[in-house]
Amino acid sequence: MRIRIDLAYDGAGFRGWAVQPGLRTVQGDLQRALSTVLRIPEVSLVCAGRTDAGVHARGQVVHADVPDQTSCEDLQRRLNGVLARDVRTRRVREAPPGFDARFSALWRRYAYRLADSPETVDPLGRGHVVTWPRELDLDVMNTAAAYLLGLRDFAAFCRRREGATTTRTLLDLAWTRDETGVAVALVRADAFCHTMVRSLVGCLLAVGDGRQEPGWAADVLAAGVRDPGVKVAPAHGLTLEEVGYPDDDEVASRAVAARRRRDG
Amino acid sequence: MRIRIDLAYDGAGFRGWAVQPGLRTVQGDLQRALSTVLRIPEVSLVCAGRTDAGVHARGQVVHADVPDQTSCEDLQRRLNGVLARDVRTRRVREAPPGFDARFSALWRRYAYRLADSPETVDPLGRGHVVTWPRELDLDVMNTAAAYLLGLRDFAAFCRRREGATTTRTLLDLAWTRDETGVAVALVRADAFCHTMVRSLVGCLLAVGDGRQEPGWAADVLAAGVRDPGVKVAPAHGLTLEEVGYPDDDEVASRAVAARRRRDG
Repeated sequence: MRIRIDLAYDGAGFRGWAVQPGLRTVQGDLQRALSTVLRIPEVSLVCAGRTDAGVHARGQVVHADVPDQTSCEDLQRRLNGVLARDVRTRRVREAPPGFDARFSALWRRYAYRLADSPETVDPLGRGHVVTWPRELDLDVMNTAAAYLLGLRDFAAFCRRREGATTTRTLLDLAWTRDETGVAVALVRADAFCHTMVRSLVGCLLAVGDGRQEPGWAADVLAAGVRDPGVKVAPAHGLTLEEVGYPDDDEVASRAVAARRRRDG
Repeated sequence: MRIRIDLAYDGAGFRGWAVQPGLRTVQGDLQRALSTVLRIPEVSLVCAGRTDAGVHARGQVVHADVPDQTSCEDLQRRLNGVLARDVRTRRVREAPPGFDARFSALWRRYAYRLADSPETVDPLGRGHVVTWPRELDLDVMNTAAAYLLGLRDFAAFCRRREGATTTRTLLDLAWTRDETGVAVALVRADAFCHTMVRSLVGCLLAVGDGRQEPGWAADVLAAGVRDPGVKVAPAHGLTLEEVGYPDDDEVASRAVAARRRRDG
């Protein structure tokens, strides 16, 4: 029986998602909690977005295979009893046939948050909103962002991995202000490579600060190599907000297609 | 020269607003920061709402008398440089003539926040949103709240102080859900006595949980003594959001009138 877990966490206390010996990670904590609650020696987990150290999630999605007849309601209640308060399961349910948290996903949506004036700095949000010392011009940032949308090779914004493609489809990259005046980037793509969101944000911050013209973003993308002018933005401003999946009857075929593409 | 400081803080690290020897308090931190920045031995502060230990603020208002010709812009920048990250000045400006942060205020508005289902629990908000183990019926809580509005003696909801009146005008007491599903009480009054907001919330929680009928809130109020069925709600769910003042040309007369009333 495969279950889908919708998960939220404060990334501050974790060395990211993926298990690392001797370090506290979200995967490690959740695997241990599942083992305890289900009384089985090992549970393997697959997530939709492998968040880096310090990155938060409100809408992480995970799948796990558990003994048949497990009650999802009981499991959720007991998991939240065992887990520390900085990680919570928001929903636990049986997954549709063929569901794969990683390969069935259509897109991942992240938010990046910055408070760029004293009026907008809220100490209650300081764990997930970056304080920025200068006011940002969101209009020019959005002009620059438009150059980056679509099916592109994002090598300039990715930490390179041997043999892995850096081509992705960037579906949304847009800045707005929330009702408190905090600048929020909505960043959505079919998938992201390593440090891609924080590099895109870092590029746009150079534009919003007036250090670069909007067209510079297009130049960086076209160059296809990491640019020293692009600083990777701090981890704690980034939150994985939502993962999109097709309807239940299409999650299996989507997983097959995505797995084939990644291998190719 | 009198200045008005708009202040926000995460109450978790403070033993409340008011200075206490040997304990970290918001007043203590801000007084020390002002002394350092202005290079004067002592600054006295008056605030609009003396928050208890663990209670937060986004809209606290403070006044202080500082040397003439002080630049508010410089002062704010330097204060935020000296203060710890859990307390921030959001705005510093010269106060209008006769302004008194406490006595010129027309009303104080607080919010109390509860996540009453696993879907609404957000680890990023756990410092200022209380996790509640059962789903709350906001409709019956609002029915109960309506019995408490208006000019009343709130002795049943206040920690009694010798010679002090417990009569207040409760202007708003209403529950809604924010866009994430968190239950939020809007609580606004001309002024509050000690523990009044958290006692009102505690009373309504007994109703929302189904332990009491809505009319019980009216009975508690009418009895005029603290009821053991009313548990004071946890401090960390409470945030001072805003303080209302009249137009600049009326702050002086308002302060005179309010001071006369409190003394009477």
